[in-house]
Amino acid sequence: MTRYLEDFEVGQHIPLSSYLVPESEIVEFARQFDPQTFHTDPEHTTTQALGGLMASGWHTAAIFMRMIVDAYLADSAVLTSPGVDELRWLSPVRPGDVLSGDATVEEVRPSKSKPDRGLLMTRVRLHNQKGESVFSVKAMAFVLRRPIIESP
Amino acid sequence: MTRYLEDFEVGQHIPLSSYLVPESEIVEFARQFDPQTFHTDPEHTTTQALGGLMASGWHTAAIFMRMIVDAYLADSAVLTSPGVDELRWLSPVRPGDVLSGDATVEEVRPSKSKPDRGLLMTRVRLHNQKGESVFSVKAMAFVLRRPIIESP
Repeated sequence: MTRYLEDFEVGQHIPLSSYLVPESEIVEFARQFDPQTFHTDPEHTTTQALGGLMASGWHTAAIFMRMIVDAYLADSAVLTSPGVDELRWLSPVRPGDVLSGDATVEEVRPSKSKPDRGLLMTRVRLHNQKGESVFSVKAMAFVLRRPIIESP
Repeated sequence: MTRYLEDFEVGQHIPLSSYLVPESEIVEFARQFDPQTFHTDPEHTTTQALGGLMASGWHTAAIFMRMIVDAYLADSAVLTSPGVDELRWLSPVRPGDVLSGDATVEEVRPSKSKPDRGLLMTRVRLHNQKGESVFSVKAMAFVLRRPIIESP
């Protein structure tokens, strides 16, 4: 059951599964990719002044990716992505937070130069267990169109 | 030696250190956050058709973060970041690639509402060992202004 470009339509909402963010994962990710005190050391005075440990924004972005892979990318005919726009961190993600969200299809545009594919544009929003928005992004992906079965 | 907002000026170039991307790191990151075949399985036919294993775009973004933390964020008075714009994946990042790059300061804007801080906007570009551009992003950060020492 592969989803092709034709299986997405503007206005469509795709719910995402929840993701629990453990403190150990926050610290491990940050030590490798974003070693700033408020991501790695819960006891540091700087961290305390900021209300406690918070996940690296790039960790939140990686979690967003996992959530959309599980929700629809894994069974879609995705080729690659040119990038994303308007990526925003709206509130801190804290240890033990459970993130949920949904993707809304904003544009489905068949390619003019490459008739086998098109561009899928989605707005994805994540919120925490308190309903606070934590992340928003406009994601793009190149997706194959449904193959035409030719008569022999 | 903390850098404050006043220590950045428009047009300033900040070189980044190099980062070697091992295959094991590509697979490990992707298994956790972006489990698509072409990021996790070098032997799969889909991967082969795409020229071999490539890093998740979010792995490249995390590496970009590590490179700018090491180059200047760690010793800057950074508060938080509202987000990024125009994030682009320009070519695949492959196992064994060595990424380098630089940040160019595009805007330094003191806040009108909060006189102790301002917005730092940088364009960061990464390229591989062959000189091919692989990643570009417009990054934003809130940075403290240099404290005013008041006479007693």
